[in-house]
Amino acid sequence: MPSRPAPGAGDGGKETPVNKILSDEGLDLLFRQARTHSHWLEGEIVDVLLEAIYDLAKMGPTSANCSPMRVVFVRSPEAKERLRPALDAGNVDKTMTAPVTAIVAYDTGFYEHLPRLFPHADARAWFAGNEALIQETAMRNGTLQGAYFIIAARALGLDCGPMSGFDKEAVDRAFFRDRRVKSNFLCNLAHGDADKLPPRGPRLDFAEACQVV
Amino acid sequence: MPSRPAPGAGDGGKETPVNKILSDEGLDLLFRQARTHSHWLEGEIVDVLLEAIYDLAKMGPTSANCSPMRVVFVRSPEAKERLRPALDAGNVDKTMTAPVTAIVAYDTGFYEHLPRLFPHADARAWFAGNEALIQETAMRNGTLQGAYFIIAARALGLDCGPMSGFDKEAVDRAFFRDRRVKSNFLCNLAHGDADKLPPRGPRLDFAEACQVV
Repeated sequence: MPSRPAPGAGDGGKETPVNKILSDEGLDLLFRQARTHSHWLEGEIVDVLLEAIYDLAKMGPTSANCSPMRVVFVRSPEAKERLRPALDAGNVDKTMTAPVTAIVAYDTGFYEHLPRLFPHADARAWFAGNEALIQETAMRNGTLQGAYFIIAARALGLDCGPMSGFDKEAVDRAFFRDRRVKSNFLCNLAHGDADKLPPRGPRLDFAEACQVV
Repeated sequence: MPSRPAPGAGDGGKETPVNKILSDEGLDLLFRQARTHSHWLEGEIVDVLLEAIYDLAKMGPTSANCSPMRVVFVRSPEAKERLRPALDAGNVDKTMTAPVTAIVAYDTGFYEHLPRLFPHADARAWFAGNEALIQETAMRNGTLQGAYFIIAARALGLDCGPMSGFDKEAVDRAFFRDRRVKSNFLCNLAHGDADKLPPRGPRLDFAEACQVV
């Protein structure tokens, strides 16, 4: 990782301390060469790797540190069978053959943890009783954390297969009996078989998606 | 970046090709040492760096490659003043002093691009006329992309200050006149002043947020 100044950090010659920049290999691993996979190589995924993914992802920023993401790692054949009937037809094979499928979810009771997670203010009071704000905050921040989770899994050498093609109500009935936690998306975790990847889809150009004002 | 096999990739002695793992320095830069900042060092941010952030973030996965994120980089004093009245009081100083504030938004007309972005099926027809699905898909995937954007900015040496404390309706009136694009969150971009960081907030442990079944 070179410690050259970031592009655009020019300050007219003065020495400004700036962060390092990720290596080209790192950018490839996380973004430029990483792909969504549907076919997997053999190999199990042990608990310590799942814990390492979460321990990275949890460090990403959320609003008032609210941290609403909850994850169920579905690994046993019995639990996979509980998931199967909720899957869209096109997602069954890739999910049932993946060593682990993460149910990335969010806790609509997240604000009960705020006195510990954000002790600087009475942040619990911002949410209690405001169902629209609870839902929006849980969804936005739980989804941000879900993306940190995908990037963290890639950083630790796994390939991901995120999916929203499933019956959320059925997953919630099967895995979240308390009705407080809601499924957001699924993410297969494994080592992908790169020989079975289709060509990469195009992306919108900067000028199509962004403006500078 | 060591090319050792990923933990958990054990396959009983056979050689399985697996991805590399991000270096410790990379994990620190993106997750373990990165912090949300509110105070900034001097330094402008040039267009090429904004384009580089987007060009990484756009590669992250979205459902059916739907890519709904749109970004307005607010940099000129005039545009900053248009943003100011929409900010919560606690977010004014840090936003007005940041060299760039990104309005991370999503396009509720994203499905019009699907014939190009996802040519394998008539994906446009899944969405057209289904407002609830459009909103949910735009929000979920636009937020995933927003997290890729934060990680990409960190990978390129910037610090981020993401915020949801602002009047979304006011921002949309000021920056998205067509009413098709909706603001999601704001993100200050700059080199942060590490001397002014408060202690880091705690996170939920693996056992509090995750289960393996």
